[in-house]
Amino acid sequence: MSAQAELSGRYVALSGGVGGAKLSLGLAHLLGERLTVIVNTGDDFEHLGLHISPDVDTAIYTLAGVVNPDTGWGRRDETWTFMCALHGLGGPAWFKLGDADLATHVERTRRLRGGETLTGVTAHLAERFGVRSRILPMCGAPLRTLVDTDQGTLAFQEYFVREQCRPAVRAIRFDGAEAARPSAQVLAALKDADGIIVCPSNPWLSVDPILAVRGMRAAIRAAGAPVIAVAPIIAGKAVKGPTAKIMHELGLQPGAATIAHHYAGLIDGFILDREDQALADQIPVPTRAISTLMHTLDDKTALARECLQFCTALVRTRGRDRQAAGANS
Amino acid sequence: MSAQAELSGRYVALSGGVGGAKLSLGLAHLLGERLTVIVNTGDDFEHLGLHISPDVDTAIYTLAGVVNPDTGWGRRDETWTFMCALHGLGGPAWFKLGDADLATHVERTRRLRGGETLTGVTAHLAERFGVRSRILPMCGAPLRTLVDTDQGTLAFQEYFVREQCRPAVRAIRFDGAEAARPSAQVLAALKDADGIIVCPSNPWLSVDPILAVRGMRAAIRAAGAPVIAVAPIIAGKAVKGPTAKIMHELGLQPGAATIAHHYAGLIDGFILDREDQALADQIPVPTRAISTLMHTLDDKTALARECLQFCTALVRTRGRDRQAAGANS
Repeated sequence: MSAQAELSGRYVALSGGVGGAKLSLGLAHLLGERLTVIVNTGDDFEHLGLHISPDVDTAIYTLAGVVNPDTGWGRRDETWTFMCALHGLGGPAWFKLGDADLATHVERTRRLRGGETLTGVTAHLAERFGVRSRILPMCGAPLRTLVDTDQGTLAFQEYFVREQCRPAVRAIRFDGAEAARPSAQVLAALKDADGIIVCPSNPWLSVDPILAVRGMRAAIRAAGAPVIAVAPIIAGKAVKGPTAKIMHELGLQPGAATIAHHYAGLIDGFILDREDQALADQIPVPTRAISTLMHTLDDKTALARECLQFCTALVRTRGRDRQAAGANS
Repeated sequence: MSAQAELSGRYVALSGGVGGAKLSLGLAHLLGERLTVIVNTGDDFEHLGLHISPDVDTAIYTLAGVVNPDTGWGRRDETWTFMCALHGLGGPAWFKLGDADLATHVERTRRLRGGETLTGVTAHLAERFGVRSRILPMCGAPLRTLVDTDQGTLAFQEYFVREQCRPAVRAIRFDGAEAARPSAQVLAALKDADGIIVCPSNPWLSVDPILAVRGMRAAIRAAGAPVIAVAPIIAGKAVKGPTAKIMHELGLQPGAATIAHHYAGLIDGFILDREDQALADQIPVPTRAISTLMHTLDDKTALARECLQFCTALVRTRGRDRQAAGANS
C-alpha cells in the first residue's frame, strides 16, 4: 500500500455477516475512521416485536471487540436467562437472543419507533460501543431477502436460522428492492472512496441484497475507485455457511471462478485463496492469490492490507492505461 | 372456618402489589383453585414497546413461588445483563427489568399483539408458572392510574418508580375508568364467591382502580357474599409503600379507621392489626383485631384463615339477622 493511501485513503467495505465482519475488523484496524462498512440489511426482521438487524449487529460487535469469538455473532460473556425463561413460557425460542444482545434490539426498536432512522440508530449504537469506523445500513427502507425453496418461500431468518439452511434453494429474491435507495451517507461514502472492497460474505445471500438496492451498483461504478472482491470460498468449499450448498442448488459450479463471474461488471480485481491460484486464468479481472483464512487478528489485518495494496495497484495500472491511451490519441 | 367453607367455599381476593400478593399466597395455600385473585391493572404501562403489568406479575410470581423474596416483586435468582447493557446504550434504565422477568413482558406483548386478551394471556402465563388459583386482571380495557402531584400529573410508574413517590399527591385519577368493564370471568367469579377479601394493598393506588372499573362495585355488592378488608397500615404507618404518606398529603388521618371509612358501603367486616385494637370503636362494621404482619408463609396462611373464618362468621350473623327480621315481621 502506498504511504499516501495509508495516511489519507478512505475505503468502503460491503459486508454481510461473520466473514464480512472479520475482514472489516482487519480494515478497521488499519483505517480507523477512514473505513465505512456498508452492511446488508436484507436479513433484518421483526421478531418478538423487535427490529433485529443481524448483520449490522455483527459488524458493530466485531468492530467493538465484544463479539462472541466462538460463534462470530452475538456478544461475548453473554447470559441466556431471558431465552430460557421465554422457552419456559412457550414463546418462540428458535432465534437465540442473549440477554445483553437483547438490549441492542430493544434500544434500536425504541429509537426507530421514536422516529429515528436505521442509519441514525446504527450510528448511535456504534458510537456507544466505541466503534471508530462508520457502519452504515445499506438503506433505510425495508428490503427483505426471500428464499424460494423446495419447501416454499421462506423469509431469510426462517431459512437461515429456523430451518438451518436445510431446504434446497430455487431462487433468492429481494422484496422491496425497487423502493429501497442508498442513503445519502452511503452515496457520500462511495463518492469519497479510494477503494471499495466486497468482503468475503455470501454473494447471493449477503452481498446481492446490497447490490439490489436501486442505484447502488450505479453509485459504486460512478465512484471511480477500484472495486475488488474477496472470495468467500476455498477449493470449492465455503469458509463458513451455505455458500457452496446454495451454488450447487442454483446449478452453479461451487468455486472462486464462479463467484468472480457473478461480480462481473462490478469489480476491477479479485482476491482468491492461494489454494485456488490455478483458477486465476478463468477470472476476467486481475487477481491476487493469497491466504484468505482469517483466524487471528493478524490474519484479518494481513488480508485487509492486501486489499488496500491491491486497490492502490489497480489505481496505478489504471493511471498507466490512461497515460498510454493519451499517448496513443 | 367451617369445615363446609374449607371443603368447598370459593373466595375472591382483590389485590394490588406486594402486600396483596402476600395475603393471596396465604389464601391460595388454603384454597388452591377455589381462589380467584382480581388484580389491579391501573399500574400497567407501555415501556420499551412492552406491555408491563406489574401487579399481575407480582401475583403470578408470588403464587408460583418464584418471586424475589428480598423485594416482593420480580423473580428470584434473576440476572440483570439486559438492564446493564441497556444502560450502557443510553436506554431508559429507571424501570428495572430482570432478564427472566423480561421474558414475561415479551411473551405477554407478543400474545396481546396477536389478538389475545389480557385475561387470556394472564391465564396462559399463570398456567405455565404452575399457579393453581385463578389470577384475573380487573378488566381488559386500559384503565390507567394518574397521580396529580405538586410536580404535575404523573403516570403511575413515573410517580411510583421513577420519582420514588417523592412528589406530594394532590389527587388520584383513573383514566379510562368509564370505558372499562369487569370481564365476564371477573363477574362470574364474584357471582360464585362465598366471600370477598380486599387485600392489604394501598386503598387509593391499588384497590381504588379496581373499584373504579364501571360496574365493579355493583357486582361486588350484588354477589351477596360478605366483603371484608384487611388494613394495610399498623399504628398509622404503612407496612410497605407510601400509603401513610399519601393519606397525609390527601388531608386524611393516616390510620386503620380512616381506611375502614374509605371502604364504607363496600365492606361488611374489617380486619385491623392487634396494635390498633383500640380503633375498633371508630369503625362502622364488625372488626377483628389480629396480627396482620406477614413475614413467613405461616403468617400469610394464618391471616388468610382468619379472613375465611371472618367471612363465615359474617354469613352466620347475617343469617341470624335475617331470621330475626323474619321473626319480627
